[in-house]
Amino acid sequence: MTAPSPFGGRRVPVAVLGATGTVGQLFIRLLADHPWFTVTTVAASERSAGRRYADAARWHEGEMPGEVADLVVRRCDPAVVRERVVFSALDSAAALDAEPAFARAGAIVLSNAKSYRMADDVPLLIPEVNPDHLGLVDVQRQARGWDGAIVTNPNCSTINIVLALAPLHQAFGLRRLLAVTMQAISGAGHPGVASLDILGTVIPYIGDEEPKVETEPQKLLGTFDGERVVMAPFVTSAHTNRVPVRHGHTACLSMSFDRHPHESEALAALRGWRGAIAELHLPTAPTPPLVVHEAPDRPQPLRDADAGDRMQVHVGRVRPDPLLDLRLVCTGHNVVRGAAGASILNAELMAVRGLLADA
Amino acid sequence: MTAPSPFGGRRVPVAVLGATGTVGQLFIRLLADHPWFTVTTVAASERSAGRRYADAARWHEGEMPGEVADLVVRRCDPAVVRERVVFSALDSAAALDAEPAFARAGAIVLSNAKSYRMADDVPLLIPEVNPDHLGLVDVQRQARGWDGAIVTNPNCSTINIVLALAPLHQAFGLRRLLAVTMQAISGAGHPGVASLDILGTVIPYIGDEEPKVETEPQKLLGTFDGERVVMAPFVTSAHTNRVPVRHGHTACLSMSFDRHPHESEALAALRGWRGAIAELHLPTAPTPPLVVHEAPDRPQPLRDADAGDRMQVHVGRVRPDPLLDLRLVCTGHNVVRGAAGASILNAELMAVRGLLADA
Amino acid sequence: MTAPSPFGGRRVPVAVLGATGTVGQLFIRLLADHPWFTVTTVAASERSAGRRYADAARWHEGEMPGEVADLVVRRCDPAVVRERVVFSALDSAAALDAEPAFARAGAIVLSNAKSYRMADDVPLLIPEVNPDHLGLVDVQRQARGWDGAIVTNPNCSTINIVLALAPLHQAFGLRRLLAVTMQAISGAGHPGVASLDILGTVIPYIGDEEPKVETEPQKLLGTFDGERVVMAPFVTSAHTNRVPVRHGHTACLSMSFDRHPHESEALAALRGWRGAIAELHLPTAPTPPLVVHEAPDRPQPLRDADAGDRMQVHVGRVRPDPLLDLRLVCTGHNVVRGAAGASILNAELMAVRGLLADA
Amino acid sequence: MTAPSPFGGRRVPVAVLGATGTVGQLFIRLLADHPWFTVTTVAASERSAGRRYADAARWHEGEMPGEVADLVVRRCDPAVVRERVVFSALDSAAALDAEPAFARAGAIVLSNAKSYRMADDVPLLIPEVNPDHLGLVDVQRQARGWDGAIVTNPNCSTINIVLALAPLHQAFGLRRLLAVTMQAISGAGHPGVASLDILGTVIPYIGDEEPKVETEPQKLLGTFDGERVVMAPFVTSAHTNRVPVRHGHTACLSMSFDRHPHESEALAALRGWRGAIAELHLPTAPTPPLVVHEAPDRPQPLRDADAGDRMQVHVGRVRPDPLLDLRLVCTGHNVVRGAAGASILNAELMAVRGLLADA
Repeated sequence: MTAPSPFGGRRVPVAVLGATGTVGQLFIRLLADHPWFTVTTVAASERSAGRRYADAARWHEGEMPGEVADLVVRRCDPAVVRERVVFSALDSAAALDAEPAFARAGAIVLSNAKSYRMADDVPLLIPEVNPDHLGLVDVQRQARGWDGAIVTNPNCSTINIVLALAPLHQAFGLRRLLAVTMQAISGAGHPGVASLDILGTVIPYIGDEEPKVETEPQKLLGTFDGERVVMAPFVTSAHTNRVPVRHGHTACLSMSFDRHPHESEALAALRGWRGAIAELHLPTAPTPPLVVHEAPDRPQPLRDADAGDRMQVHVGRVRPDPLLDLRLVCTGHNVVRGAAGASILNAELMAVRGLLADA
Repeated sequence: MTAPSPFGGRRVPVAVLGATGTVGQLFIRLLADHPWFTVTTVAASERSAGRRYADAARWHEGEMPGEVADLVVRRCDPAVVRERVVFSALDSAAALDAEPAFARAGAIVLSNAKSYRMADDVPLLIPEVNPDHLGLVDVQRQARGWDGAIVTNPNCSTINIVLALAPLHQAFGLRRLLAVTMQAISGAGHPGVASLDILGTVIPYIGDEEPKVETEPQKLLGTFDGERVVMAPFVTSAHTNRVPVRHGHTACLSMSFDRHPHESEALAALRGWRGAIAELHLPTAPTPPLVVHEAPDRPQPLRDADAGDRMQVHVGRVRPDPLLDLRLVCTGHNVVRGAAGASILNAELMAVRGLLADA
Repeated sequence: MTAPSPFGGRRVPVAVLGATGTVGQLFIRLLADHPWFTVTTVAASERSAGRRYADAARWHEGEMPGEVADLVVRRCDPAVVRERVVFSALDSAAALDAEPAFARAGAIVLSNAKSYRMADDVPLLIPEVNPDHLGLVDVQRQARGWDGAIVTNPNCSTINIVLALAPLHQAFGLRRLLAVTMQAISGAGHPGVASLDILGTVIPYIGDEEPKVETEPQKLLGTFDGERVVMAPFVTSAHTNRVPVRHGHTACLSMSFDRHPHESEALAALRGWRGAIAELHLPTAPTPPLVVHEAPDRPQPLRDADAGDRMQVHVGRVRPDPLLDLRLVCTGHNVVRGAAGASILNAELMAVRGLLADA
Repeated sequence: MTAPSPFGGRRVPVAVLGATGTVGQLFIRLLADHPWFTVTTVAASERSAGRRYADAARWHEGEMPGEVADLVVRRCDPAVVRERVVFSALDSAAALDAEPAFARAGAIVLSNAKSYRMADDVPLLIPEVNPDHLGLVDVQRQARGWDGAIVTNPNCSTINIVLALAPLHQAFGLRRLLAVTMQAISGAGHPGVASLDILGTVIPYIGDEEPKVETEPQKLLGTFDGERVVMAPFVTSAHTNRVPVRHGHTACLSMSFDRHPHESEALAALRGWRGAIAELHLPTAPTPPLVVHEAPDRPQPLRDADAGDRMQVHVGRVRPDPLLDLRLVCTGHNVVRGAAGASILNAELMAVRGLLADA
């Protein structure tokens, strides 16, 4: 059962910025069958502009959806990309100027870039977790005088971790978090990580990744007071690693809480959690958002994150921690749940909230 | 410069138990060129007994040393294996009965098995860290009435972690340790991990591994008071993961200490550390025991642990921890430093201490 | 558009022998949504018999279909497995006795085992290639006095190669074939290939594989004269290799023909080929059976064989051969097109031909 | 036993062009311990020129030899690089102009680039196979008026294949060769192949590789008549594939000969072969050049080509071919035997032949 379209029978035209890259391609794929949206413009760097999409994009997996193959790639310029709804897979350098330009021109920009995630007036959104943060859209418009807006989704590691944490934080109040990630190569895009650097080994470092994992969760789990988001008062330490896995970011988490949960309470909280938007039945929303595994050797990125509904986050090995209170392992698909799918779900929430009207 | 042999010109005959497996093969390889020891007996399970070693062992890497190829594999029975010095690569089930039987019959058993590591009167030894724990050999002989003895080396993950911790513990007093490992497939032996289970993915669980990492360090860094080892008073939490790497166990560590070290103090402690046996110049002792890396993306298992001197442990990414005091990454070779090489170094220390006399 | 069920509204009950293994699991998965068949019995070795399927099978990928989880695993004995249609994923040793026992008891056995593939009176079937070989069913029943029958599908490498060859053989008459394969680890089942043996390397040998690739194609492309199959008169040389790929067997083929085809003629033959059963619209039949790639670096096992419709075989790099006439690369999914899916397609063809009546 | 230095006690200063890349680094490593040569200049592209070598080169494996770390990288210009002996790891585009410039200026250029391999007056050299082709140096100098010379080694796949073929060609006369390669990622240098393109899959294409494998063997096995090399009269067909292996190019070969060898004759030819320079005892020459394996699943790139003496080529699975006469598998290290080590061995041969006099 999926919600009826807030747009009636028509599919709303949308643009994808950064459409030729790894995340951009996944936007194209996921939107190809979307009941509410249809890709009418693909935009990318100057180098690709003017070429057929099928020629400009080195398509990575499966078949390219037929309808976009013949689109001509546009420049990332609001003067030539006129859709009201714009999905951005731009890198942070390109996003810095382009995304405000689009918002100023009236577009709703659903962004994967880190550039504005931590800005005070920009929602950093996971619909199941903090849908009320969308209230920042009004704050943003007022502050910046924009018709459009920028709405961001978290870093591809953060989102999986925060979905696993949300039920526990809501029930027990997170105080301290230690997160060690094992991240897939697709997180670095293409060409990204050289095969000689990663085949048969581990790289214990991902540039600029740990600061994101250490700051975004506090905003995501923070409280919107009508004007701003008050950060959740916990401290995070992150070690981020690259491993030879194609898709699926895995994290080992150790946590302490305001109120120490028994293992069974923690499991009950995780298993019972449906998130804040279950009753909306959004097309891309997974049901349930979390899968709790019992097998001692699960979840795994290949068998769980990259199989089945790639919007679900998988949790397992929930057990007491000798040092903090609790520990567990979680894994989720870094390009679907962690990037393109996340933005699309954000757009669906905005649609049913009337924030894409006139789109 | 290597120490002169305590045995004069002759090489002491030694036996290897469990000689056909992954660790057993590495004993054979490392001992082939050893200046003090020579393998005169190979022993293994009933299934292999009576066959030529070259036929019984499915040799994994490089060339099999010529001198062992024609040895006939013996049963693991002190009645037929008469060497005074016995290296044991037996699994813990086989070790449970066999190792005491050998010790009772007068052999010095240098064991990789977990069976007796935590026994009160058995040394759990890393020569660079706790050579004085060898004092337990007398305690053990008195308690058990043995002519021989069992001396153990730690779990293959623990040893690398403890070598990285030792300088910091000695300088600042470890209080809390959170360790997340990414372990190589060779740690599970052969056939070990099925390729379908690990190729392109991560298994967030290794059976019976976390308890070892959570208890052995306290004994290794504990204090021998002449009669027993007083455990070091810190608490450890471990997450252990299998990754598609051939050799080299990597760990992300977060730590707090009695005395909070500044990052530069920690680096100085690590860089200056030479361990307790540097002046002995044992043949297998690495110089220095630790390599401290400055590059942000090091150390790595393939490029560091499995290259150069595989007895060294590699440390990097030493930096403050927002939650505890300090964090770092370490990696070491799990079969050399973590198993066969560790036992051989233990034997060398015992040799210069006169504990292999009559061998 | 899929053919209407020859069974009307009901789904025919089927059994799966060897249901807990890699191929068996894929039978379960593919049949879970099948419009004509439904799995009512799972059978396996004595060791699994009597247990719940969900407990006996270590499920490899994705979710186990709910309807089989609670089935009790049966012994592979026609006295307890009574379905008329039986899919066999047994290994060849087990198949040797079990499959005739089922056929004698009246079952139609759709077999993946090599045991009877080359028997004179047993069809070795690829529906798109040699559907008329089903005529051997009558020969077999007469010769053996069976109510049931054994119908086999080819080795998982052979089937992909023969599908790529069929259009060329039909148009130009194959004379000589040199095939070098690079085969996925799933072809060896689970646990199958040890990770230490294959991670980061190649094994240039697969036990008992080359004889299959060198003999089965001649039968598959042979002529049924009403009584027996006259082998196609070409000679094959095969080198078979294992590579660290999960799914998808790839082959480099060099070929000479009775009539030398120009490259463009060969491409036209491949592109235009629809196979012998296109008009039947069987549920599992891929449309078209072959995908011909133009990109110089395609087809690839991960991006092509294991993506999209896993019943299609992918062909590329069609070009002249300096030594023989023509060369190309092909890849197909070894467990779907090469095993479970192949058997199911065979069953569908038999169903529309009335050979599963009374099922 | 190694030959005495033709240079007496001193080590001859040499330069490495393209010193920062994968092959260049291996030159540095192999020459660090060389008894006859010492690296005194490292040169690379404009981008690296002027920087410390340790800063300019992203060192891949193990420790960087200390003596080169502080060398300042020079431009690849004979005006600033004055050594008489120059090893070139330049790519073919850069080699096209640079190598003749160096030769004109009087340097002996030992080149890995394809640019001049097939030129009529340039030796394409494997010392064990065709040392007399060095006679082309005089032809070259006369034709071009150079004091120096260009001497090349073959493509990294070709050299392994030709070493396996040489004994058979010499004994039986090669007529037809079909070669299918499975090549390591290090063959493409760094960053080279993107991990997303190769992890867990196979790429059945390597740009510009097949023409090299199809033409270089005829020159290598050709006859030098005092003025030019008469190509050996056989035809080659090559399929070249990239596989997820770090080091070691493997090839499956099927061959026919003028005189059909029995399998045992072929094995005897391979086993007895010592090559043309065994009695010279050159420092880098492997003894013997070929290792013939009996185990059915050998040779393998990781266990054989990348273990032990990486200058040896490993051969196995020698057996009759149903189509041609004989087939086998060979593997060799693509960066040592296939590139840097090959050039160094060429230099050693030239040294003992007096062709590096005045160096």
